[in-house]
This record gives sequence, C-alpha cells and structure tokens, in this order.
Amino acid sequence: MNKYVYAFEEGNASMRSLLGGKGANLAEMTGLGLPVPPGFTVSTDACNRYYANDGVVEDAVFEQVFDALTALENKTGKKFGDAKNPLLVSVRSGAAISMPGMMDTILNLGLNDATAEGLAEATGNARFAYDTYRRFIQMFSNVVMELKMSQFEEALAAAREKDGAKVDSELTADTLKEVVENYKDIYRAQTGQPFPQTPRQQLAAAVEAVFRSWNNPRANIYRRLNGIPSSLGTAVNVQSMVFGNMGDDCGTGVAFTRSPSTGENKLFGEYLMNAQGEDVVAGIRTPQTIETLGENMPEVLKQLHDVAYKLERHFGDMQDIEFTIERGKLYMLQTRNGKRTATAALQIAVDLVKEGLATREEALLKIDAKQLNDVLHPTFDPEVIKAATPIAMGLPASPGAASGMLYFSAQEAEEAAAEGKDVILARTETSPEDIQGMSCSRGILTIRGGMTSHAAVVARGMGRCCITGCNDAFIDPEEKVLRTSEGREFHEGDYLSLDGSTGRVYGEKLPTVPAAITGNFETILGWADECRTLGVRANADTPVDAQTARKFGAEGIGLCRTEHMFFNSDRIISVRRMIVADNEKQRKAALAELLPMQKSDFRALYISMEGRPVTIRLLDPPLHEFLPHDGEEIEALAEVMGISAETLHNKVTSLHETNPMLGHRGCRLAVTFPEIPRMQVTAIMEAAIEVQKEFGYQITPEIMIPLVGETKELAFVKNIAVQTAEAVIEEQGLRIPYKIGTMIEVPRACLIADQIATEAEFFSFGTNDLTQMSFGFSRDDAGKFLPDYYEFKIFEKDPFATVDVDGVGKLIAMAADQGKKSRPDLKLGICGEHGGDPESIEFCHKVGLTYVSCSAFRVPIARLAAAQAAIKNKK
Amino acid sequence: MNKYVYAFEEGNASMRSLLGGKGANLAEMTGLGLPVPPGFTVSTDACNRYYANDGVVEDAVFEQVFDALTALENKTGKKFGDAKNPLLVSVRSGAAISMPGMMDTILNLGLNDATAEGLAEATGNARFAYDTYRRFIQMFSNVVMELKMSQFEEALAAAREKDGAKVDSELTADTLKEVVENYKDIYRAQTGQPFPQTPRQQLAAAVEAVFRSWNNPRANIYRRLNGIPSSLGTAVNVQSMVFGNMGDDCGTGVAFTRSPSTGENKLFGEYLMNAQGEDVVAGIRTPQTIETLGENMPEVLKQLHDVAYKLERHFGDMQDIEFTIERGKLYMLQTRNGKRTATAALQIAVDLVKEGLATREEALLKIDAKQLNDVLHPTFDPEVIKAATPIAMGLPASPGAASGMLYFSAQEAEEAAAEGKDVILARTETSPEDIQGMSCSRGILTIRGGMTSHAAVVARGMGRCCITGCNDAFIDPEEKVLRTSEGREFHEGDYLSLDGSTGRVYGEKLPTVPAAITGNFETILGWADECRTLGVRANADTPVDAQTARKFGAEGIGLCRTEHMFFNSDRIISVRRMIVADNEKQRKAALAELLPMQKSDFRALYISMEGRPVTIRLLDPPLHEFLPHDGEEIEALAEVMGISAETLHNKVTSLHETNPMLGHRGCRLAVTFPEIPRMQVTAIMEAAIEVQKEFGYQITPEIMIPLVGETKELAFVKNIAVQTAEAVIEEQGLRIPYKIGTMIEVPRACLIADQIATEAEFFSFGTNDLTQMSFGFSRDDAGKFLPDYYEFKIFEKDPFATVDVDGVGKLIAMAADQGKKSRPDLKLGICGEHGGDPESIEFCHKVGLTYVSCSAFRVPIARLAAAQAAIKNKK
Repeated sequence: MNKYVYAFEEGNASMRSLLGGKGANLAEMTGLGLPVPPGFTVSTDACNRYYANDGVVEDAVFEQVFDALTALENKTGKKFGDAKNPLLVSVRSGAAISMPGMMDTILNLGLNDATAEGLAEATGNARFAYDTYRRFIQMFSNVVMELKMSQFEEALAAAREKDGAKVDSELTADTLKEVVENYKDIYRAQTGQPFPQTPRQQLAAAVEAVFRSWNNPRANIYRRLNGIPSSLGTAVNVQSMVFGNMGDDCGTGVAFTRSPSTGENKLFGEYLMNAQGEDVVAGIRTPQTIETLGENMPEVLKQLHDVAYKLERHFGDMQDIEFTIERGKLYMLQTRNGKRTATAALQIAVDLVKEGLATREEALLKIDAKQLNDVLHPTFDPEVIKAATPIAMGLPASPGAASGMLYFSAQEAEEAAAEGKDVILARTETSPEDIQGMSCSRGILTIRGGMTSHAAVVARGMGRCCITGCNDAFIDPEEKVLRTSEGREFHEGDYLSLDGSTGRVYGEKLPTVPAAITGNFETILGWADECRTLGVRANADTPVDAQTARKFGAEGIGLCRTEHMFFNSDRIISVRRMIVADNEKQRKAALAELLPMQKSDFRALYISMEGRPVTIRLLDPPLHEFLPHDGEEIEALAEVMGISAETLHNKVTSLHETNPMLGHRGCRLAVTFPEIPRMQVTAIMEAAIEVQKEFGYQITPEIMIPLVGETKELAFVKNIAVQTAEAVIEEQGLRIPYKIGTMIEVPRACLIADQIATEAEFFSFGTNDLTQMSFGFSRDDAGKFLPDYYEFKIFEKDPFATVDVDGVGKLIAMAADQGKKSRPDLKLGICGEHGGDPESIEFCHKVGLTYVSCSAFRVPIARLAAAQAAIKNKK
Repeated sequence: MNKYVYAFEEGNASMRSLLGGKGANLAEMTGLGLPVPPGFTVSTDACNRYYANDGVVEDAVFEQVFDALTALENKTGKKFGDAKNPLLVSVRSGAAISMPGMMDTILNLGLNDATAEGLAEATGNARFAYDTYRRFIQMFSNVVMELKMSQFEEALAAAREKDGAKVDSELTADTLKEVVENYKDIYRAQTGQPFPQTPRQQLAAAVEAVFRSWNNPRANIYRRLNGIPSSLGTAVNVQSMVFGNMGDDCGTGVAFTRSPSTGENKLFGEYLMNAQGEDVVAGIRTPQTIETLGENMPEVLKQLHDVAYKLERHFGDMQDIEFTIERGKLYMLQTRNGKRTATAALQIAVDLVKEGLATREEALLKIDAKQLNDVLHPTFDPEVIKAATPIAMGLPASPGAASGMLYFSAQEAEEAAAEGKDVILARTETSPEDIQGMSCSRGILTIRGGMTSHAAVVARGMGRCCITGCNDAFIDPEEKVLRTSEGREFHEGDYLSLDGSTGRVYGEKLPTVPAAITGNFETILGWADECRTLGVRANADTPVDAQTARKFGAEGIGLCRTEHMFFNSDRIISVRRMIVADNEKQRKAALAELLPMQKSDFRALYISMEGRPVTIRLLDPPLHEFLPHDGEEIEALAEVMGISAETLHNKVTSLHETNPMLGHRGCRLAVTFPEIPRMQVTAIMEAAIEVQKEFGYQITPEIMIPLVGETKELAFVKNIAVQTAEAVIEEQGLRIPYKIGTMIEVPRACLIADQIATEAEFFSFGTNDLTQMSFGFSRDDAGKFLPDYYEFKIFEKDPFATVDVDGVGKLIAMAADQGKKSRPDLKLGICGEHGGDPESIEFCHKVGLTYVSCSAFRVPIARLAAAQAAIKNKK
C-alpha cells in the first residue's frame, strides 16, 4: 500500500515535493530537536490522487490519517474526542511552493460540546475553553464549509454589546458559551445539519477541504501568475495544538530572522499575548514588536534568538517563523525562507556570504531575479501609497511608478513634454506612430491590450512605466476625457499616477522615490558575471537605449529594430514617400533621403557600444504600418506629400492585409524591394567604417535578416547585403569584417535550420513570432479566449512571457542542434521578449545559446538569471 | 577529368538525367540498330557547371565537344567547314523531363559562304544549298542571337515578290543566294558583327545558347507549374544532318505510334515532302497524313511501321517519333513517350496490358494522375473552341467548362438558377456567404485571389468550374457590369463561358461536352484499388457532395466542414442569433433552432455513405465570418433580427480580429462557448443512432476537434463531446461506437503529437493551415510577394498545392511517428488541399498515413496516385 501519511519524525526538508514546504520544514525542525508540537503530514500525492479520482479521497488516506492520529494520542497522552483530556489539532495546507490563496488554517479541531467542557475542567479555564470552541466553529464553518461569516460576526457583536465589552477577550465564559450555542444554530440553519460532534468527522472534512482549496480560483490565478504547475498538489499538516490564548503567560507571534525590507541582520517581528494565531493577522489588537518580549519573558526571547540563529545556520537563509508561547514555553509552528524586498534580498545575499553562511553561488540562487525589477525603476513612497486609493486597475505591463499630467494623443504628449511637463499618455491602444509620444512620457496607460501588447513591449523596452488592459476605464479621445467605471472623469492636464508594478492607477499626483542601485547590487551582479556562461545583450533601437543598456552591463546590442527610427517625425515623411513611390526611381529617391539619417543613427549606436557587437535587423514590419488609415489623416498627409488623397487612399487600400502577421513583411520586403536593404546595408557599413576611422573601435556589424523561412530566400537577401557591403568597403577604402545572420522566428526555419546555417553566420531566435506561429494565435487576438484557457487550466503559463518548452522550445532546440551541425561556430542568440525572463533564460542556457538579448532594463535580471542557470545546471 | 560529352554509341535510355530525354533515347535507338544519324550529347552536368560558374562554359566542355566532332567527322567521312564535303549538324536542347519553352533546334549548323557553295556543288543542287544556308542564318539569328525576325521575314517576302513566288520552295537558287546576302546584312546591322563564318564558333555559340535557354522566363514558368527543379539542367544534342529538303524523294515528319487523342492502336502522324523539320510546324504548307506516305514510298512507310512496332515493344509505351527521309532513306531523329489526352492515356494503358506490353502496375504508372481531371469534368467542344477568342484570362482554379448567364451577386445567382437559368457567378472575390450562390452556379469567376483563394477551394470541392485572379477584367457590382481591359462590357444576363482548365473566359455561349467516364476508366481505377494501401476519402459538406464522392469511389468522408451548412439561407439567421446572443441562455435558444437542421444534414450524410466512416469537424471559422460587415447590410440584418443596428454593429466590431487566421476559431470556440460543441455532438450522435435504427448501417461517427495546439485543450473539448455523446446514447437507448480525434494543423500540435495522441483516436493533418503557419504567411496575403519568389526561384513549387516535404513534411512525419508511438493504432489522415495532389499523396504513402481525403472530384485522381505511390515505393 502507498504511504500517504508521514509523522514529523519521519520527514525532512528534502521531502518538500511530497510533504509540502511547511510539512517538510516542521519535520526538519523536529529532527533538529527544536520545540515543535508533534503531528503528521498527509502527502501531496494523496491530494493528486484525490483529483485523479474525481474529487474522492481514497479510503487508504483516511485509514493512515487515523493510524497517525492514534500514534499522536500516544505521543501526547491526550485522546481525540476524550472529554477528560482531549487532543486538539490544527489543520493547515502546505504546498511545495509557498502559495497564498488556498485554505490556510483551522485551529482547535477536535472540540465538541463534551471536549469543550472537558477542556474547561482540565485547564480550569472555562473562558478559554469556550472562546476556543467558538473560534473553532467559526473557522470550520468558514474554511471547511464555506459559509458566510456575517451572521457569525453579528452574533459575536451582539454578545459584546450584551457584556458591554470592547474586544472579544473581555467576554465572559458564560457569554462565550451562549455564543457557541448561537454559532451552532447558525451552522445548522445554513447547512441543514448539526455542527459535527465527532472529531474524526471534523478531521476528515478538514483534510478534504484543504485538497479542495488547491483548486479554488484564487489559488489558480496565483499559480498561473507565478508559473506553478497545478499538478504539484498540496499536503495537509495535522499538528497537536498548543495554546497562546490560555492566559497572560501565553502568546503567539511571527518573526523574520532579518529585516525583510532592508535585510538588516536583526530579529524582526511581532507578537500578541493571550491570543491565537489569527488574532495577529486580524488586526483587532495591535501586536507588539518582538523587542518588547524581553520585558515580559526574557528567557523566551533569548530562546527565540537561539532558535532563529540555529535555523539560519541550518537553512543558510533568512527565515520567516511562527511561534506560540504556552504557559511560558516556546513552541515552533513554522519556518520557511522569508520573503523579502529586492533591496533586502541583495543585502542578505551579500551578508550571508560575508558571514560564511552561504557561498557566492548559493547566495546568488537565493535572489529572485525577476524581483530585481523593483530596484531598477522608481517607486511610489510606500507611506504615501498606503493612504492612496486607486481609481482603476489594469495589468502591470512595465514596472516603475510615474506621476504626471494626462494627455490623450502622442502629439499632445510630445508638445506638453517639450514645455517641460511631466506627461502621462493615455490611449485606448498604442500603435507604432505613438512611439515618439511614448518616449516623451513618464508613464503610459492603455485601455486595451495585454502584457505583450504594443504599448507593453515598447514601454518595457524604454523602461517606461506602463499599465495596459485597464478595463475599468474608458477613453473618449474626441472629448479628451478618461472616465472610470465608477464615474470619475479626468481631463487633459489632470494629474494621474501609475504604478506599473501593481497595475494601480491613482487620480492624483503622488511622490516617487528614485531607483536605488546600491553597492550590494553591483556586488551581486559582479558575482553573477563570474558565474554565467551565457552572454547578455540588449535590444536597443536608439542611442539612448544603447546608453542605458551599457549602464546596466549589456555586452552588445542583440537587436536594433531599424524601423523604430523610421517613426521619428523628421523621417516618417521620407519613409512614406518610399512606400507611396510608384516606381523604383521614386523609391530610390526617398531612400536616398533616409540614408544619411539611418547612418547617423547607426553611428551613434556604434559609438555608444564602443566596439561591442551591434546586431541590426533589416526593415521588418509591413509597410502599411507606416501609413495613416483614417480618411482625415490620409487627406492631410496627401496634401503634405503633394499627391491626391485618392492616390494615397488607393495605396493604403492596396497595402491592406487580411493577416498582417502572416503578410508582406520581414525579408519578403527585401525580396520585393531590394532598394531597401541596399540603403540599410549602405548605412550600416558606412557608419561602421566612419566610426572605426574616427574612434578606432574595431567594429563588426552584424546584419540580421528577419522572417526567413527558406534557405534560398536568405541567400537572395544575403547576396544583396554582401554586394552592397563590399561596394561600401571598396568605396571607403577600409575593409572591416561583418557578419550576416538571420532571425529564426518562422517554424519552418527551425525545421530546415541545417540548411539555413549554411548561409547564416548567426541565428537569433525571435521567440515572439515563433510562439505566435507555433501556437497558431496572434497575441493581438488571443485576448478573446486566453482568459478562459487560464480559468480552465488549459494553459498555466503565459507562453509569451516564458518559453513554451514542450512546443516552441523543441523547435529552438532542434534548430540550435541542427544549425551547429552545419556550422559548428554558429552564434546563437534570442531576442524575443523571452530573453529577459529568468525561466526562459535557464532554458536558453540549457539549450546552448551563446547569448540572450532583452530590453535594457532587464539586462541586470538577465545577468543574474544567466548566472543562476549556470549554477543550477553545473550540478 | 570529368566526362561531359557522350557519343550516341556510349549512352542508353537509363542515362536520362545525364543526357536528357532526347539524348538518352537517341543513344538507345542507336544501340537498337535503328537508322539514327550519328552524333553526340553534351551532358546536363555541363549545363549545371555553366550556371554554378556564373554563366561561363568550362574549357573542358568545349575541348570534349570538339573531340567528339572530330570523331563524328571520321564516322561520316565529312568535315566540319570543309568546302568540298561539309559536315553539317543540328543542335537541340533536351532536358531529363520534356519541357517546352527552351531553345528548341538549330539545323544546318556548319554552313558558311564556302561550305554552302561546296554543298551546292556536292549535291548539284544550288537551290537546296542556299535555301539551307538562309534557313540556318535565320535560325541562328533567332534562337542563338535572339534577334528580331521581322526584317528577315520582310527580306524573304521581297524575294518572293521579285520571283512572283507564292511559297518559299518556288524561289530560285539565285534569288536565294541574294536572300542569304540580305540576311547577312541584317545580321551585321543588328549585331554589329559579321555572320560567323567559322563553324566551330557557330557550334560553341549554339551550345551556350542552349544552356542559357534553360533559364529563360518561359522555361522557368513551365518548371514551376510542373514542379520541375531548376537544378536538373539541360543536355545539348549535336547530330549530323540528314536532309528532307534535298528533293522530291526527301521529306520529314512526326508520328505517334497510337492516337494521342483516343489511344487507338494505329500509326498516327503527318509529313511534308521536300522540307525541313520547321516547315511541318510552321504551317505554311499543309502536311499530309502518314497513310498517304504509302502511295509515294511504300517501303519507307513499311519501315516506319517496323520502327514504331520495335520502339513500342522496347519502351513499353506509345511513342512520339520524328523522322526524316533523305533520298528515299528513313532516318530517326527522336523518340519519346508520347503525350496524350486523358482518354487516350486510359485506353493505351488498358491496351498495353492486353497486348502484354506492360503489367498492370507498369500501365498504371504510365498515366498522369493529375490529367484525369480532364475526364471528370465537362469540356468545351474542341472544334468550337478553336474558333473562339477569349475576352480575358485568369487562373485555372477549378477544371471543367461552363456556359451561362452572368450574375454579380450570390443572391441574384440563386434566384436566376431557381428560374432554371444556367448561371455564371462573377465576383471581385467570394466569401463564405456566397456558398449557396456558388453551388447554384455552373461556373465562378473572380477578379482577385489565387489558386487557393476561397472561391478556388470551394469550387474545387463542389466540382464547379472556376477561374480566379482574372486581372484582365474589372467588376462594378453597383452598375452590374464586367469590363475587360480591352473595353468590352458584359451586363447581368449576358452570356459568358469559362474554361476552368485553361483560365480562358469567352464572351459568348459555347457548347460543352459532358464528362465521359468510359469502361477503361473503371478498369484502371479497379487496378489502382488493388495496388494501393492508402485509403481514399472525400471532403464533403453536403449530401450532394457525399453522393458525388461515393460515385467516384470514396471510402468515407474524411472531412465534413459543418459550418458550410451554416450558410444556407434557412439557417444563417439562427447562426447569427447564436453569435449575437448576450448570454448563454440566448445562445442556447439559437442553438436549439440549429440542432434539428444539423441533425438532418448529418442523417443525409450517413445515409449517403451507407455505414462508411464519416468524420465531422466541429465549428471552425471565426464567428465574424457569419456576420455582414458593411453598414447597410448590418442595418438590414438588425431589423430582421429585431435588435438595434448599434447593438449589431458593436457586436461586429467586438468580433473584429487583427489576424483572423490566428484568432478565435477552431477548438478555441468550443472552449469559450461549450454550448456549440454540445449542440453539434448531440446532432452527430442523434442522427447516427436514428440512421442506424432505421437503416441498419453500423455507424461509427468520427468527431474531429479542429486547431488543437495543446493536449489539455483537446482533453477539455473531448470531455464535452464524450459527456454529450454518452448522454445521447443513454437517452436513445442504443450504444453505438464513436471516435474522437483532432485536426493536426497548428505546428505545435506536431511537436507534442505524442502527448496529443494520448487523447486523440485519430489525427487528420490540416495541411492548408499547417503550411500557412509553418511558413508564416497566409495564402490571402502571400499574393503580394510570391510572384517575385517564383521569379527569383526562391520557390519552385506552390507549397499550398504540393506538400513542402522539407519543412511541413518534416512536421507531419514527426507527428505521425510520435503519435503512433503513443497510440500504435492511431488512424492518420490528411484533409487539406494536398490530399488530392499526386505528389503529396506519394508523400502521405511514404510517411505511413492511413488515408487521404480530398474533394469528391479528386477522388479518382487520389485512387490512382495512391496506387502509383504504392507501386513506386514497393521497389
């Protein structure tokens, strides 16, 4: 028979996946000889079988639970349901990965009318016994039976009124006895059943409730947001009760072994005397700080310090502990690695190494790479934000905090910014034409779009704070007003504040705190650079991007999207002339206007990167993206261009595509309009040669051909690029090396990567498009069904945020492998959104890529994540 | 050193890829002892090196050519350039696969002023000598130098006038001598060079011209249309001349060993006395039928019969031969398997088996499966069509011929058809709403769209003749007029005739000849069925489709697209109500209206198929396809539906997708609106059980879930289907088996096929979408760049017509392999357009699919192609 139940003595910290984090650590503490009340853990395996079995707990599970209970009775000398000396237990959930949202805790289980009376007698404290009983009924009703709490609260309030009591602890034993009777009536009224008087029945129901809570909506959402597979399941911990509410020599508390906000090495926590666990959380009485415990119980505080020290030595990390004091004796109820701010995480990691508690490699693994975002962007003052009320909520699309005046169009935003105003740009959704306006704004808010919408991607690239998908609000761009679902209105120029890390929108001006990049941060990234084997480059389209990227330690530019330069107001007109051109001659004339501009862009990039590699992608988006689409804008533009509105309108129509994502873009543009790559390669090469002559940097431009799906297609465009590059070299009289490679972003390219590698000197995986094409859905359209996919757990992770290892990952691995077979020195990179995601970075490391490229603001994250990947996979 | 040149004695028929078809067969005939003028062949390898070498012929090639020429001189006792006894040669191209469009032939090469004079003396026939010389100058100028012919023709016309001659053969020797002088002047004027007098220089230029002609636009287009790789290259045949124009005991002709139009076993051909090859083709003099040769030269005719008999025995197939008679002696200049009509192909194949010249398997391989199209559809009377002039030209999108009255909207077409008129529906492009109108029409003409546009796909499915991409014409639907680029106008009700096999549009009523399915056809398909291992099913959406499919021998339905039934005018309103529904209740009410209709559709399908398998795909297209998009139509519909136009407009807007191909469709609809699959599965199961009860057919419905990309997604929808099916079984009190499977059409599905097969009982490869997503272009949009891709030879085949083996094929093979590993009895089918393409069918056979499914009219083609695949791959 399978073993589903483990006494604390039987487990240890390594059994996390079977016993959950809480159970494994209770077992570990038991093994360490710390004062842990005895108990046992029902394994995650039992939970998984419950789900496999359509929500039925196997008989074997209950049999083993009751066997363990008998053992617990023997250990404690108490008996479950015994009126004289009743055994009471707590029941808590505990998954392998700590996870809020599930059923948390039921205390005092085992109480019924008889054992409550027995408890009163045994302790000589009827008030304590009935207070404990009413707490149990309330918790059981709430978390096991999911009854509404309002009637229970009303009954308690009535009791307080009757006794003239301000707080519950002032209620008398008799009143509490009445409360218990009222509670049982409420329970019967709501469930149609009497409150269960059999402790074993209570226990069985509680165990099943924990299993059930694994699958509630809050837990599901949490798992999805954090990429936790639902197949892990939760364990259930059953532990004999100790009581913090037995009198004034009793209490309960929580503590961190170091400061979770700064990392300072000092016990940090709070406690309540004469209370049970939930009182600390409930906030009815204000807990005291841990230092004051020394005044009442210096011995206990000393013991707590000792335990904390021992646990830190043992686990090699800052611990978050729960304890109860029963009649002056300390009991440990939980320990786990403590959550911490990014600042604290850096401080603790550095300190642990100094104190010899961890090696550098171990310390690096203790930092959540994603969390570094918090120290890379400004934040709101935490004190101020506590008092502020959001007016709307959207998706936290790009982290950071920003306050500014509201504008509804990119142009107005640009103008206001030029006047020195702090600007918040609010749009229903953004398009490539808005890029200038976005870059002038402090923050961007969009009503539509998800975490990978245009606004989100561009804002992250720029390090601008951004909130997308803010369905709580509506924008009327004509009236220039933003209306919230609660009816508030904000007009042009009104102040708005955005917290891109939480998705909260505030209707007022709020002070921000600038990003603090402390010495610890530098230390940690220094260690990371020593450990990692994966290169880290940045996606950077402008000299400003490139400078930011360098500041954050990028080793080169992995993706420069040349088209982003096309939207600048001084060049869009030439771009449009090129598009509207009727013939090659007109097109060449327009391209000749663009050449010096592109060249000066590239010069600035090369200069910023001081000779480090710069990968420049040839024009990628479909041409219609550069033209206006609505009638008035077309008319205005036609006038500027000196052509008829009809001609321009016809051009716009002729460029219309049914599926732009699958249309005339990428290298397909280079095949049909070879003048475009000729101009771009000329600019790339002339700029490189000039900068090399002027500054002496040894530059090797990397020319990247996008959207290749066929070898001959790459060869065709490569041939244009080589001819152009050679012509420039000849003309300039200086030979510099250059590389020609391709984006791998079309599934077919992965399938024929061995062929493609015969032509390409490097691959850069464009995982955004590769994900869209492999799954067969575009991120612009998937918003209509993905919410249901998450709800039904068809997807548990966002494939646009983290590489889909099973599908897209298989293509990447295949392409990397086949590509290297054809060309052993093939450079392999990734430049999709995934390049800045720690989990995806680990995949990139495993699959043998040369570097990842991500937005400048993610470079530090990528450096740390790359180090973590190297450390984890060394073993 | 590589050998590039082979004397005819050195080769044989098996050296086709090296010597080309013509060269290999000349060698084979030489080996058979037939009267072949001696010569040699320059290999295709030399041609490929010419291209690899940027258009330079290797010295080694010319060295070997001149060595072979010396050998030829020795063999013939004549000398190249010798004034006394000049050797003259013909130079012809010859690829491995017979291919028009390349340089064809230069005769009489080796003539110059001196050798012409010598030839006159040697033959005592100055007229012959100068006629031959002027022909040579003309041909050399035309095909080698690519000069314009008009001046040459004018000079010849002037000569005729001077001599008072009606035809060239009446010109005197002196006049011809003058013509030669004139020709040389024209040559010098156009080229700036004198006409080359060195025979070796003439020969070198001719060889190079043949190589060059391999890559001319006509040859490229032909190769693309016929899927011939450009890497094959062409050979060059150099053969000593024999003369059919030396006098009245000379002549030249062509013959088929059997009738190429009926297959009748009888020598069939024509010849001209005192003429050279090009005269037969030029049509200046009318050739005589081969029978009349017996009157003049009975010996030669007998000899020709003997050669024909010998060649057929030897090659086991009907031969197309060229011959020349020089002074009463027969020479063979070419033999090859003869092109034939589909009718002839069938007759010949059956006869060859009867005559013991071929086994059944060999006979089956002699038929071009694609050509069977011609006997499956009506055609125009070939006599009438000769006289008719097309008014416009489009793509031959769906074969067959149709005449009818012109209508410009689906509804008007429907109404006219209801009045008993023959209708031609002409649209700028069609959409799913037009399906009813299309099915009522004899033929469909669209201005836009390619071979795989909506109109093309649907028309092929229906077996309707269809021409798409008719850029020569323009439709004004308001005015109800079709205007051709030549300015002709056709109004509603005017007669139009479409030839869907050629793409020609005629502006008049033309008589059609119905498809003749003869006994041979049945015989051949019977043999095919014995040989093939691949099943053949049909894609059929309606009972009419199903009946056609059965008539053509389909073994089941591989794809029923349920949505095609949704467009019928009696149900579209319910479909729209379902879409516009605000909540589940309204949606269910609309679905309840659809249920009996879908059920009756499925009943009819099951009854037509008499118990054979029927695979029904759940709703696939995005919902917006069922709604109108323009303002007026929306208003009209809103009124019918009793909702406000604004509501309907908002619905249409909310359903808008950026990339509909990658949007909310397929099983994603089933996930978000589970009521839809519930209704559909109810209809599928109720209909099956009813038909089984009433007719006794043992039915196993196959429910197909489209667009699956993730196992849990399939499991989710499958669960809905199973629950629904089981509920119907329980309610109806009859258990019937059913299968649940999936379309494999998203790249990711192929990558995780092992997982998906744990849930799917069958896979059906949807290669249309799989091709689009693997290449990353949609067929609706690819028209903007694919023409350039073909021109630059980046693509040589249409990946939507023939499976792209390197890319998409790899995904299919992977999925088939992995799927079978998980579920060894997994059924594997294909239901994309490729299921009816012979080359793709061979791929399906090799990769181990269970069946192919194609449009009903392609079923016979698929049966034959499947047999051919089995035969070819047995070896």
